[in-house]
Amino acid sequence: MTPLKNDTFLRALARQPTPHTPIWLMRQAGRYLPEYNATRKRAGSFLGLAKNPDYATEVTLQPLERFALDAAILFSDILTVPDAMGLGLYFADGEGPRFHHPLRDERAIKALHVPDPHTELRYVMEAVSSIRRALDGRVPLIGFSGSPYTLACYMIEGGGSDDFRTVKTMLYSRPDLLHHLLRITAQAVIDYLNAQIIAGAQAVMIFDTWGGNLTSAGYAEFSLAYLQQVVAGLKREHNGERIPSIVFTKGGGGWLESMADLGCDALGIDWSTDLALARQRVGARVALQGNLDPAALFGSEATLRSEARRVLDAFGVGPGHVFNLGHGISQFTAPEQVAVLVDEVHTYSKRQRTS
Amino acid sequence: MTPLKNDTFLRALARQPTPHTPIWLMRQAGRYLPEYNATRKRAGSFLGLAKNPDYATEVTLQPLERFALDAAILFSDILTVPDAMGLGLYFADGEGPRFHHPLRDERAIKALHVPDPHTELRYVMEAVSSIRRALDGRVPLIGFSGSPYTLACYMIEGGGSDDFRTVKTMLYSRPDLLHHLLRITAQAVIDYLNAQIIAGAQAVMIFDTWGGNLTSAGYAEFSLAYLQQVVAGLKREHNGERIPSIVFTKGGGGWLESMADLGCDALGIDWSTDLALARQRVGARVALQGNLDPAALFGSEATLRSEARRVLDAFGVGPGHVFNLGHGISQFTAPEQVAVLVDEVHTYSKRQRTS
Repeated sequence: MTPLKNDTFLRALARQPTPHTPIWLMRQAGRYLPEYNATRKRAGSFLGLAKNPDYATEVTLQPLERFALDAAILFSDILTVPDAMGLGLYFADGEGPRFHHPLRDERAIKALHVPDPHTELRYVMEAVSSIRRALDGRVPLIGFSGSPYTLACYMIEGGGSDDFRTVKTMLYSRPDLLHHLLRITAQAVIDYLNAQIIAGAQAVMIFDTWGGNLTSAGYAEFSLAYLQQVVAGLKREHNGERIPSIVFTKGGGGWLESMADLGCDALGIDWSTDLALARQRVGARVALQGNLDPAALFGSEATLRSEARRVLDAFGVGPGHVFNLGHGISQFTAPEQVAVLVDEVHTYSKRQRTS
Repeated sequence: MTPLKNDTFLRALARQPTPHTPIWLMRQAGRYLPEYNATRKRAGSFLGLAKNPDYATEVTLQPLERFALDAAILFSDILTVPDAMGLGLYFADGEGPRFHHPLRDERAIKALHVPDPHTELRYVMEAVSSIRRALDGRVPLIGFSGSPYTLACYMIEGGGSDDFRTVKTMLYSRPDLLHHLLRITAQAVIDYLNAQIIAGAQAVMIFDTWGGNLTSAGYAEFSLAYLQQVVAGLKREHNGERIPSIVFTKGGGGWLESMADLGCDALGIDWSTDLALARQRVGARVALQGNLDPAALFGSEATLRSEARRVLDAFGVGPGHVFNLGHGISQFTAPEQVAVLVDEVHTYSKRQRTS
């Protein structure tokens, strides 16, 4: 493979100095881009995109054509693993992900198998290889998965939820069953991410989208413990290159100290947590990724630039910061605003390093 | 007025010793109670209930008939103030609150007036007086309002929202306009809560339901600053009795230190924050109210009891704890579970005091 032309993202994750603060955006290949919508139309649907390596490669690279982003992220969904387990992922029009066969009883949970990613999620591995070839060393490629608890939430609820009543009912009445599910899911996530690494992912990110719906004690028992298993099970090196991992629990700002002990290289930080305080709390243990409010992209150009500087100033000087949003970019974002943001992050962070 | 027979709630808010930890539940008069649903059916709608002092009194007292709760809370809605400003509150079937006339331009915002609560929200004051008479000193009555920022969110969005795109766009492009709206809303909340106090409310609570959608800096500027104005404007005494205030920012666990400086008597804590840590962080400045996961009521009786004890143990011994959920009680809760919870909180907290 071609050596990396831009390794700022990997260097920042390793807490090494970089000439500027690298930036990428969660969901950077997405509906705010007209070219994405055009490809999606050709593919027929979101899953039509995600399951076709050529389309997945095309949309993964689209934001890089427009913006000087410092990393690419595999175009896929956090729910491919339960889909491979037979739950039947689909997207109803204008709604979030849903499953045709949510887990509704003990029998269904006990019948679950850990999918073989090389066969049952082959389309993902093909997409990873294809994207790596297309990137040709431009920037590193990030692979990803949902966290065991987040996958369990979707698998039990059958989709998103306002109150997560079904999974919480299991948690408070049949914790043994939830633990069984989480053990299987954790193993599936480990196998899946390791297969992505073998296929060419140069870093991996674990999205714990729903960990924030737990109590402090519940987070430790039902999410953090399995995040720990996953991180411990990940390949740390491939082809002589270190493979860093990022863990992001949305709403997890209260638990950063224990997350910093997970053994991962970086923590994703949502926009509600002050980055200066977060850095102080985790010390030198991990790099931090975040944490602009995605809605700042709806503001005026001047405000967007000053909000970006606020995030950079909050982290302050010194290595270990990857700029990102605190959540996925909104489909209602004007692409021109992303260009402004990338410019401000690069320009201002260079200036920070020389002043 | 009759002297209070059970003042544990007020004593706990004042951080004075109590024989047991007092408990009440957010939304304790609500859809999980069959008798509530029967009254609501007679009233025709939620607003039919809230706007009729007799019905409001009836449903406010219903949970007290079933459970040994230590406080009553006015049956009303957090959005009565914008309704009195002319926005036209309504509830679509099975959905949250909405406004017929959300604020969509500068003209609409500049035309807003501060309602006179004694005339324009007279039905609320009549309900407060009527409930006080009906309570006859059994337990104290809590009045409440939405926070200025939370009201502004609803007024601008026209209802709830997943991304609060409209209010955030204003925040990041016309902060001056949002500040204008917040100033008016803060004054309206002050007048409204003071009128409730004069009508008989013995404590007041401010629900900052959406403050958690802000960044740390945004919270300080757009929510906390106006919470401070409200708290500073509240009557601290009425008829020789001190009137305590409680501030609850859902998702505000990261900002407890600055909230403890608001000048209020207590902070509401959602279930994601460990109460032991919260207490350590706010010290002796305020009492704490919370914070059982409402979903714990879906668990087995044994788990519910142990989760209640976990909350009581987390706060630990010493005065200043009001037991509550970390969010409103779910409509899907079995009433029998509430009886279990109240029993456990009273029994176990008595035992804590003697061991």
